[in-house]
Amino acid sequence: MTVGSVQTLETLAGGITLPRGFRAAGVRAGIKAKGLDLALVVSDEPAAAAAVFTTNLAQAAPILVSRDHLSRSGGIARAIVVNSGCANACTGATGLQTAREMASAAASLIGCPSEQVLVASTGVIGVALDLEKIRHGLPHAVTALAVDQGPLAAQAIMTTDPFPKEAAARVSIGDGNVSIGGMAKGSGMIEPIMATMLGFVTTDAALPKPLLDRVLREVVDDTFNAITVDGECSTNDCVMMLANGSSGVTITETTYDAFADALRTVCLRLALGIVRGGEGATKLITVTVTGAASTADARRAAKAIANSLLVKTAVHGGDPNWGRLIAVAGRAGVAFDLNRAAVMIGTIVLFKDGRPYDEAAPEAARYLKNEDIAVSVDLGAGMAASTVWTCDLSAEYVRINAEYRT
Amino acid sequence: MTVGSVQTLETLAGGITLPRGFRAAGVRAGIKAKGLDLALVVSDEPAAAAAVFTTNLAQAAPILVSRDHLSRSGGIARAIVVNSGCANACTGATGLQTAREMASAAASLIGCPSEQVLVASTGVIGVALDLEKIRHGLPHAVTALAVDQGPLAAQAIMTTDPFPKEAAARVSIGDGNVSIGGMAKGSGMIEPIMATMLGFVTTDAALPKPLLDRVLREVVDDTFNAITVDGECSTNDCVMMLANGSSGVTITETTYDAFADALRTVCLRLALGIVRGGEGATKLITVTVTGAASTADARRAAKAIANSLLVKTAVHGGDPNWGRLIAVAGRAGVAFDLNRAAVMIGTIVLFKDGRPYDEAAPEAARYLKNEDIAVSVDLGAGMAASTVWTCDLSAEYVRINAEYRT
Repeated sequence: MTVGSVQTLETLAGGITLPRGFRAAGVRAGIKAKGLDLALVVSDEPAAAAAVFTTNLAQAAPILVSRDHLSRSGGIARAIVVNSGCANACTGATGLQTAREMASAAASLIGCPSEQVLVASTGVIGVALDLEKIRHGLPHAVTALAVDQGPLAAQAIMTTDPFPKEAAARVSIGDGNVSIGGMAKGSGMIEPIMATMLGFVTTDAALPKPLLDRVLREVVDDTFNAITVDGECSTNDCVMMLANGSSGVTITETTYDAFADALRTVCLRLALGIVRGGEGATKLITVTVTGAASTADARRAAKAIANSLLVKTAVHGGDPNWGRLIAVAGRAGVAFDLNRAAVMIGTIVLFKDGRPYDEAAPEAARYLKNEDIAVSVDLGAGMAASTVWTCDLSAEYVRINAEYRT
Repeated sequence: MTVGSVQTLETLAGGITLPRGFRAAGVRAGIKAKGLDLALVVSDEPAAAAAVFTTNLAQAAPILVSRDHLSRSGGIARAIVVNSGCANACTGATGLQTAREMASAAASLIGCPSEQVLVASTGVIGVALDLEKIRHGLPHAVTALAVDQGPLAAQAIMTTDPFPKEAAARVSIGDGNVSIGGMAKGSGMIEPIMATMLGFVTTDAALPKPLLDRVLREVVDDTFNAITVDGECSTNDCVMMLANGSSGVTITETTYDAFADALRTVCLRLALGIVRGGEGATKLITVTVTGAASTADARRAAKAIANSLLVKTAVHGGDPNWGRLIAVAGRAGVAFDLNRAAVMIGTIVLFKDGRPYDEAAPEAARYLKNEDIAVSVDLGAGMAASTVWTCDLSAEYVRINAEYRT
């Protein structure tokens, strides 16, 4: 990432309604037992739209419908409707119909074709989504639409998330500037079924569809795809982006990098918020793998370390167990040379040149008392690197996920 | 498995010293803070030997030495020496020398070439194994060698295992009968570093080396490789087998299946003992995947389900969260058809033909109060199947692994 090199990039308070020409709302439709549960994001003008969807083969109805709408609209959208409290997943033909009706109800209120509305859901799998509640809630959401209602939209998409996640940035491009805003909900494993990660990003830049698709995919790979709470991938995961051009600035190949850096800043802040809000999480762990034979190897090893229960429990307990890091790297299915490998906790070397430096363990144990922890493993097999973020594993995680219904 | 079809197969009490011509001992060498920590298994006559070693690329010194000895001896061994309390892993050239000396010290006491002794270690990674303690302990072990000392050997290889694991079986073959005995230590993640799974099997059958290698590999794949506690694979994992021919029965292609079934019975009992003894485990979970496009797909999906924190915590909490099973199957990287998929908890169908059967959830919740739980997922993509065994994930697991040093 080259975020630091873009001098004109500012991170800002705010979220999806910071970019010009976007309004949002978060209302209660009665799907969850309590709290806001229906969010609406609307662009005043038709916006270029892109999305990245879950790779899970058990795809929820809203995923299927949004993919279809993006295709049929030629990548144009006016609005995104999101409900929490019910994932509308594994609900068969009825669920598919409900997701379609959810989009068309919003479209008729806003005044646009159905296929210009994207939908997302999060919550319980295998339970029918009550269309009447959505139909009842949507007019209230449309009435509430405003440029200052982004925070309520961010609340309305939460399930077990401990806090809402918003981020925004502005970047100078040529004589103008463009804003990017986002909101996300986290992968605290969702009641009672599965992690769902939803991300929504808006920008007032104009982007030709191929550039929009490319920048979203690249940035998601560095951010939302580089975090893990428990290695799961849900039926409903998606990241959606709308670019409405209200700034008057069009992104080109020349200005692509500056825009991508700003988007990466927004998405990384949202992604790290998801990790910090992981169920039972007490620490943010940055896992860096260096010395890999390829970037794919580096990412694979970093993910294996980030998902290792032994690593996550050791960090939780403040135990500088470098042997667990070496052992996970060794079984990660990547090129690895024990005699050239190295392990650091923070900047403290604990294994290098084939021998342990156990005398540094007390210093590493003190470092592990911090809330933000970095661990790194050099595979001793090449020059490629990758960074992945995760959280620790606590008894509270087990309690939340074991005892939800009891 | 065709265990049930072999009418002459008896499971027996006992372990590695049940087969004729084997003696064992378990003594204290002072490597662990307390308890037995040095085991010795000796065959009166040179035995055909085979082993399956960890696929971890960070291989411990005893793994490297045993592999080398098997190769140099042409697959003949008289003895196996095992210590607990120190893994002798990530210990560089010194560790390698220690492992060699451990074998040669045993060899000179027994009176055989060094390369006819195999070695194994389990315990802390990255700490030097004290050779003097091994040298001091070995004569006591040799003195103690006896046919009734198998239980002490099984104790001496334990680390955090809650109980020793032994199993034995006898099978009629032709006019004779052969016995198989085994002991194992578990993958309660070993203090303080890593899971180590060690298995040792003896038989008084004679097996030509190619048959011995084949039967061990096949059976390990169905048993020790079909269990998982937390998806880890250690630097020290191995299963070793000695066949000394004392029964006078030689296994041939014709009698291979009967022998393999008996060996599978012994290894499965040991493997399930490891799962039941997993750290913090309260339930044994049998995960069966059917309807897979290939056996590899079936195994991969079953492993993904068995390693899913969400599945393991749901079973721990007695929550019939069938959606978690579907969602893990969907992201397991295997062929999967949601519309033809099915999920059962016990024999209770909770999802089939694209729709949930949530009305059966209370019955499934009652079933989940049992200690032995079966879950099954049909991928709807073919005819292949696989079974994997795991345990639930409790807050106690986190406590053990987070708080070891604190």
